[in-house]
Amino acid sequence: MVSTTQSVDRQSCAAADARDDLMHFKDRFDLPSDVIYLDGNSLGALPVGALERAQEVITAEWGNGLIRSWNTAGWFDLPRRLGDKLGRLIGARAGETVVTDSTSLNLFKTIAAGIRMQQVDHPVRRVILTERDNFPTDIYVAQGISDFLNSTLDDTGNRYEVRLLDDELPLEDALDESVAVVALSHANYRTGSLWDMAEVTAMAHERGAVVIWDLCHSAGAVPIDLTAAGADFAIGCTYKYLNGGPGSPAFIWVNPRHQERFWQPLSGWWGHADPFAMADAYAPAEGISRFLCGTQPITSMAMIEPGLDMFLEADMSRLRAKSLELTDLFIELVEQRCGDHPLELITPRDHDRRGSHVSFRHPDGYPVMNALIARGVIGDYREPEVLRFGITPLYLSRTDIWDAVEALRDVLDSCAWDTAEFKKRHAVT
Amino acid sequence: MVSTTQSVDRQSCAAADARDDLMHFKDRFDLPSDVIYLDGNSLGALPVGALERAQEVITAEWGNGLIRSWNTAGWFDLPRRLGDKLGRLIGARAGETVVTDSTSLNLFKTIAAGIRMQQVDHPVRRVILTERDNFPTDIYVAQGISDFLNSTLDDTGNRYEVRLLDDELPLEDALDESVAVVALSHANYRTGSLWDMAEVTAMAHERGAVVIWDLCHSAGAVPIDLTAAGADFAIGCTYKYLNGGPGSPAFIWVNPRHQERFWQPLSGWWGHADPFAMADAYAPAEGISRFLCGTQPITSMAMIEPGLDMFLEADMSRLRAKSLELTDLFIELVEQRCGDHPLELITPRDHDRRGSHVSFRHPDGYPVMNALIARGVIGDYREPEVLRFGITPLYLSRTDIWDAVEALRDVLDSCAWDTAEFKKRHAVT
Repeated sequence: MVSTTQSVDRQSCAAADARDDLMHFKDRFDLPSDVIYLDGNSLGALPVGALERAQEVITAEWGNGLIRSWNTAGWFDLPRRLGDKLGRLIGARAGETVVTDSTSLNLFKTIAAGIRMQQVDHPVRRVILTERDNFPTDIYVAQGISDFLNSTLDDTGNRYEVRLLDDELPLEDALDESVAVVALSHANYRTGSLWDMAEVTAMAHERGAVVIWDLCHSAGAVPIDLTAAGADFAIGCTYKYLNGGPGSPAFIWVNPRHQERFWQPLSGWWGHADPFAMADAYAPAEGISRFLCGTQPITSMAMIEPGLDMFLEADMSRLRAKSLELTDLFIELVEQRCGDHPLELITPRDHDRRGSHVSFRHPDGYPVMNALIARGVIGDYREPEVLRFGITPLYLSRTDIWDAVEALRDVLDSCAWDTAEFKKRHAVT
Repeated sequence: MVSTTQSVDRQSCAAADARDDLMHFKDRFDLPSDVIYLDGNSLGALPVGALERAQEVITAEWGNGLIRSWNTAGWFDLPRRLGDKLGRLIGARAGETVVTDSTSLNLFKTIAAGIRMQQVDHPVRRVILTERDNFPTDIYVAQGISDFLNSTLDDTGNRYEVRLLDDELPLEDALDESVAVVALSHANYRTGSLWDMAEVTAMAHERGAVVIWDLCHSAGAVPIDLTAAGADFAIGCTYKYLNGGPGSPAFIWVNPRHQERFWQPLSGWWGHADPFAMADAYAPAEGISRFLCGTQPITSMAMIEPGLDMFLEADMSRLRAKSLELTDLFIELVEQRCGDHPLELITPRDHDRRGSHVSFRHPDGYPVMNALIARGVIGDYREPEVLRFGITPLYLSRTDIWDAVEALRDVLDSCAWDTAEFKKRHAVT
């Protein structure tokens, strides 16, 4: 570990890397040599095994096996088989998770299932509670459901509503007897700040709401135990920390206590109890399979496995320790070496509240990030004014962190701060 | 063309193949040498270019370009760009079609959009009309929507309902003033029989219903002109006749007269008017883009393009002529050479009513198909008792058809018909 009390330099970073027995994982990614990649929280890097897996699916399974591969290559069981592997990273038992569809669609399924449960148990609850600072698609999906259900209601008395937490409306106040479903992102996409999953779940249950956790920015980033937290539903993507590839299918977890109660309204053939009987009435499959819908993109799905296998091999608690060390180091170095510049840390310093990315506000965040990317240090920019850096312990080293901060310092130092002057020097249009 | 009035043999088939200027397309597929593939109506064959395209997406775009490829590799525009190419096969103009999600999900979007239209214009219309013999997932999706909407309705007076056409309930009688949406498969998945798209659309419109065409078994199989037919919505898959690869994303077309009226309830970030503004309210994109939802599986989607390009090069009307020639030939040969066996043609003989697959019922259809597949002639079996053969003119020849029928004859002749004896000989368990 690089000491954060002594003075850090590139040499001490390299020395700590040399002692790090997770470093060999970096060789199992195919990363461009001229890039320091700090955007694995948006699209993870390419595991070496993924190309090989895709070639196998395309030539042997599709090309040669053709239709037979639904059985012989295990396509039909792929969502469940990958779901079981992924489940081990989020505190799920076998048979509780499937990989399928997109995060937005899986959120639709879980909100709809949560609403159905409440319709039976507490029909007056018609509020979907989420937060203004949630990843926007989560809010849009909640609005889509609410809008669709309201469109059929004749009365004006009790309509569905999306309620947004913000500075004026904290969770404590928002969670009243009208809330049906609480849908929150475990790690905030902008700040990296974590909700306390067990605490929020307990509070929501006490007040009669069901809870959906969006794990997009925390699966593969922090240890998660959905079972211990007693959560109701969880969804998330596989292409960020889990390195599944661009747009690889998402996942969905449903607590077994709810799985058999209802089916979700996106009821397609893959969620049917007996899909090849060609019955003319939907009969939901047992358990988590009823959260499947239509045919899945097999090549994109199969490529998720090499990334998952690395996580299972590396152990999430060791990755978490390294993630915290690297995010601590990044914060410390930025504050030490870029301290003259108007950077404001918006990621929690408290380890218990921090995911695996670090964000700073800067009044010229957008051109600063563009200049940094042009130098091969790839983070990203998020409105408003946020420089966001994903810290992925599987393929980042302490020297990467050192070099990234040096590049940031060079970019920031390249002019006495003047936005117009900066944009001119860096040719930002 | 192989004459169907003179006696046909393998030699005349080969001679006709030699004169066929579409035959070179067969070399652009990577087919196993020991197989005659008659299941391209279920999963199309592998275009040679698809592997190369996948390798480019994985190594250059994902591995090297990383997050930058959303712009530099055109990922963000991929659903629209592929949609425009595909649109040319179904009578759509540019900007009217997107490739995205699964057929089941796109059907959900279009039924929901159709219902929303009717809620405003004719709120008493609450029936979704489809047919008992439709591909089951279409029925299940309709049931899912109906069930979800009904779950919120307090009154018992006017609920959503899925009505199924069948022998007792023809379209003429079923299309009453309660029907909101008609959702039909253009080509029947079992028999290959075609609806008259223009005629049915006109009748539905006359009676106040909107029409959704499922083109899964007709896109790439027969010429389609949605614009001329005045259809409202269409959806379909890309992995059957279009050869997009296992589970490649589906498509959705919306007549421009409806595109701006509503948004569909699966409202995710990719359908937002300004997805990177991170606004906290959904504002639908203009036009067809609002039928997009969440992040798409880029590798599986990109592989659709080589298959589409071949269709655009080959011309759908020439493919249709060859498809009809091959299906005629297949029917003629089966009837001539397997005439002693209890085979019943359930595909229309009328060219105007026939898609591009041919089906026969046989009381032991399941073991017969298993035995045929074991000999390398791959068709498929569908309940009840149906032997189904997909006839894909891009990669099938007249000699393939000849050889396939010979194999079928051998299988059928291999025992004087006795189910138990047959199963024993062919080791069917």
